[in-house]
Amino acid sequence: MNRRKFLKGSALLSGLFTLNPSDFLANSTKEIPDPGKKAKNIIFMISDGMSSGTLAMANLYSQNILGKNGNWMNLYLENKVSRALMDTASASSIVTDSAAASSSFGGGYRVKNGVLNMGANGEKYVPIWQKFKKTGKKTGCVTTVTITHATPAGFCVNSDSRNAENEIAEMYAEIGFDVMMGGGDEFFNPLKRKDKKDIYSLYKQKGYQVLKNRADLKTAEKGKKVLGVFNSGALPYSIDRTSIPELQQMPSLAEMAQTAIHQMKDHKEGFVLQIEGGKVDWAAHANDISALIHDQLAFDEAIKTVMDFAEKDQNTLVIITTDHGNANPGTIYGPDATKNFNSISDYRYTNEYILNAIHPEFNIQQMKDWIYETNKIRLADDEAKHLLSFYSGLEKQEAGLYNYKKLPFKAYSEIQKKHNSVGWISMDHSGDYVEAAFYGPGKELLPPFIKNTDLHYLMLKAAQI
Amino acid sequence: MNRRKFLKGSALLSGLFTLNPSDFLANSTKEIPDPGKKAKNIIFMISDGMSSGTLAMANLYSQNILGKNGNWMNLYLENKVSRALMDTASASSIVTDSAAASSSFGGGYRVKNGVLNMGANGEKYVPIWQKFKKTGKKTGCVTTVTITHATPAGFCVNSDSRNAENEIAEMYAEIGFDVMMGGGDEFFNPLKRKDKKDIYSLYKQKGYQVLKNRADLKTAEKGKKVLGVFNSGALPYSIDRTSIPELQQMPSLAEMAQTAIHQMKDHKEGFVLQIEGGKVDWAAHANDISALIHDQLAFDEAIKTVMDFAEKDQNTLVIITTDHGNANPGTIYGPDATKNFNSISDYRYTNEYILNAIHPEFNIQQMKDWIYETNKIRLADDEAKHLLSFYSGLEKQEAGLYNYKKLPFKAYSEIQKKHNSVGWISMDHSGDYVEAAFYGPGKELLPPFIKNTDLHYLMLKAAQI
Repeated sequence: MNRRKFLKGSALLSGLFTLNPSDFLANSTKEIPDPGKKAKNIIFMISDGMSSGTLAMANLYSQNILGKNGNWMNLYLENKVSRALMDTASASSIVTDSAAASSSFGGGYRVKNGVLNMGANGEKYVPIWQKFKKTGKKTGCVTTVTITHATPAGFCVNSDSRNAENEIAEMYAEIGFDVMMGGGDEFFNPLKRKDKKDIYSLYKQKGYQVLKNRADLKTAEKGKKVLGVFNSGALPYSIDRTSIPELQQMPSLAEMAQTAIHQMKDHKEGFVLQIEGGKVDWAAHANDISALIHDQLAFDEAIKTVMDFAEKDQNTLVIITTDHGNANPGTIYGPDATKNFNSISDYRYTNEYILNAIHPEFNIQQMKDWIYETNKIRLADDEAKHLLSFYSGLEKQEAGLYNYKKLPFKAYSEIQKKHNSVGWISMDHSGDYVEAAFYGPGKELLPPFIKNTDLHYLMLKAAQI
Repeated sequence: MNRRKFLKGSALLSGLFTLNPSDFLANSTKEIPDPGKKAKNIIFMISDGMSSGTLAMANLYSQNILGKNGNWMNLYLENKVSRALMDTASASSIVTDSAAASSSFGGGYRVKNGVLNMGANGEKYVPIWQKFKKTGKKTGCVTTVTITHATPAGFCVNSDSRNAENEIAEMYAEIGFDVMMGGGDEFFNPLKRKDKKDIYSLYKQKGYQVLKNRADLKTAEKGKKVLGVFNSGALPYSIDRTSIPELQQMPSLAEMAQTAIHQMKDHKEGFVLQIEGGKVDWAAHANDISALIHDQLAFDEAIKTVMDFAEKDQNTLVIITTDHGNANPGTIYGPDATKNFNSISDYRYTNEYILNAIHPEFNIQQMKDWIYETNKIRLADDEAKHLLSFYSGLEKQEAGLYNYKKLPFKAYSEIQKKHNSVGWISMDHSGDYVEAAFYGPGKELLPPFIKNTDLHYLMLKAAQI
C-alpha cells in the first residue's frame, strides 16, 4: 500500500488516531518543502476557544465601531501569511479541552482530555519549550488566565491533570523558563496555598525577579528571569479593564507580550514565546458577547505588538491560531441584524460584572435601571423578574466552567440575543476546524489542512532542530 | 492619501460599503498577479448556507462513518487549491440572504437582501452568465432546489424580487442559457401556474429538450439545449433519496453536474457552470443534522465529479465556496461527544420526513416507536408528549423559511441534541466569514481575504475578459 495514500486516508480518520511523530516526519519530508531561512525565534499566539464567528465578529466590530480592520485580517489583506484549516480533536474525543489541545502542539501527540503531555500508558512526551530550552533558546509564556493554566502548561510540563496548578507553579521554577506572566497568585502565595509554601521565594532563589503589577513591567531588569503574577485567578476581561480604572494596574496581553519580547529578543540563540488570549474561551463559556469581542480585540492588539517586532526582526516565525472553537457564536439574519450587532458597543461591562452586582433585594425597577445603565437594554418587566428569580432562589442557579459565582449567564445571554442578534450553540467547546496562520521564516511549511499535532513538528522543522 | 491604504482601511468597513468595480479593478491590478493561463471554463460550486461547522462535520462523518476524508478536504490535503476567507455581507445587512449573496458573485455589486442584481435606484447589474454568454461560452446552472431559486437566478437575471420565480422561468428561456436543471415544476407547468402558461412549450419552441427524470439524463441529446425539471419544489434531501426508492428517479447533484459538463465540455469557446447544493441551506434552516450532513456529502460527491473533469481538462477554474453561513452548527464538548456524533449514522430520514409522518392520533408508544425506528433515539414519555402537542394543537405550530408544513423542527432538534451533541445558534443565516477555494488556471489570483463581490471580478480576470 502506498504510504502517502495510507497517511492521507487514515491518519486523519476520526480524530482518534494518534499519528506517530516518525510517521509524520516520514510523510512530511515528502510533502513539506525544505525550509529556506531558519526561524531563530518562534512566537505562538493562541486565542483560546476562538470559533470562526468570534474572529469574524471581532473584525466586524472593529470595522463598524472602530473604523478599521483588525490586525489579524489585515495580515490576510496584505497577503503576508500562509493559512491552514486545523483539525483540533484530542485522543479521547472529537472535541478537545485546552489541556489536550495545548499538549498536541506542545508534545506532538494527541492525549486524553484533561491531561498534559501524558500518554495512555504513562508515556511522557517532552514539551516543546523544554526542547527549545535545551538548544539554548530563551523560553516564555504570557496569558490572561493563570500562568499555570492548561495552555501555557501544555508547552512546558507533563502532568496527569491540568488541575495540578500548585505543582505546575513549582515545576516551572525547577525547569527555569525565562519569562512567565499571567494570573494565579493563589498558586504562588503562601497565604493562599494550602501547603503554605512560598513559591515566590522559590522563584527568587532561582534568580527570578517577581513582577506584581503593570508598573513593574516598565522597571523589569533586562536579562534577568521574570515571573509576573498580576492577580488572583485570571486577569480581568478587557471590557471591564477599560471601564474600571482600578483594574488598569494590571497589564494587557499586548503589554505583557511587549515586555516578554523585550526581555528575550537580544538572546544570541533566539527565543520562543507563547501568547495566550485565555479569556476569549471564558467569554465563550459564559456566552458573553461583549467580553468575547473585547478580549478577541485585546488579542488582536497583541498581534500588532508581535508583528511590529517580527517585521523588523525578520527571523521570527509567528503562528496565530486557536486551540478549538467554543460555542460557535455568530450574527443572525434579520431586518435589524446590523443595528443590533452594533448596539454591542453600548455594553460597558462583562455580563459577569453586571450580573455579579445584582442583589436579591433589587426590585424590578432597580433591575431594569441597572441593565439599562450597563447595556442600554430596556428589559421588559417579565425579563427583569425572570433574572431576579435566579437571585431569590426561585430559579436554580446556573453552573458551568469558570462560572464560579453561579451567575445566570445563559438566561441573560438569551435576553441579550433579542437585542444584539448574536446566538450560541452551547456554553462549551466545539469540534469545528479552526484557523491557523504563519508569518515569517517557515511560513512556506504550512499546508492547507493540518492536525493540531502537526504544529509541533512544523515548529521544530522551521527552527531546523 | 495612499489609495491602497484607503481601500484596505475602508472598503471592507461595515459590510455596507459597496465597492465600485472600477475601484476594485484599480486595486486589483496592483494587488493581484496577472493570470498565467487563461481559464477557458469556470465551474462555480456553492454549498448554500454552509457554516464552517457544516464543512467540518461532513468531513468528520465521512472519516468516522465512511472511513475516508471528504473530497473537499482531500483537495486541501493534496495541496491542490488556493483558499480565502470571504466576507459575505449584503448592501442592506451584515447577514445576507441568498439573493443578495448570489448577486454579489453574479453582478459584482452588493444589493439589498431579497433582490437580484438591482441597485437601490433601479440600476441593473449585468449578471455574469450573460457576460460569458456574450463572449460565446455555453452557460448553465444545476441545483437541488428550484432552478428559478435565488442562487442560480443571481448569475442569470435581474429582478426586483427573488420570489418572482414564474417570471424567472420565462426570462431564462428568453436569454437562452444552455443547461438549466433542478426542481420547480410549478413554475413551468401550465397545470400548476396561475396564468396557465405552458413554459415547457416555450422552452421547446426555443429549441430545448426537456428532461423530467433521472433516466432522461442518460438519453439527453448532446449539443441541444437542456431544461431539466425533476420535481415540484426542490429535489429531495439526499438522506431521504437514499432511503426511499421512489425518490431515486430524481437525479443527485453529482449526476446533474456530470450531465451538464458532458453537454458543454466540447464547446470551442468553453463553458461556465454553477452547481448549487441548495438544500444544505434548507437543512440548516430546519436544524436537521442528518439532512445537513448528507446534503453536504452529496455536494462533496459533486466536487469529485467536477474534479475528475477539471484535472483531466486542465483549462477549468473550479471555485468551491458557500454564499453565507447558516445556524453555525457544531459538535459540543462532553464525555460522549464522539459516540453521540457517530449515532447520526443511525438516522434513516430527514426530520421533515419523520415529523411529517406523525399523526395527531399517535399515542405516546406509537410516537416512541416511530422515533426509534427512524433515528434509534429512545424518547422519554414527556418528550413524546411534548412533540405530540405540536400536532394536537396544544403547542403553537412552528413557522420558518422552507418549513412549509409547519413541523416542530426546533422542538425535535432540541431533543436530538441531547443524543447527538450537535447545537445550532438559530434557524437562520449567519454573518460569519466563509471558506472559498480555487483550483486550476486562475487559482493564483485568489488573495487570502475577499469580499463576496470580488469573486465576480476574479472570474472575469481568470477568463481574461
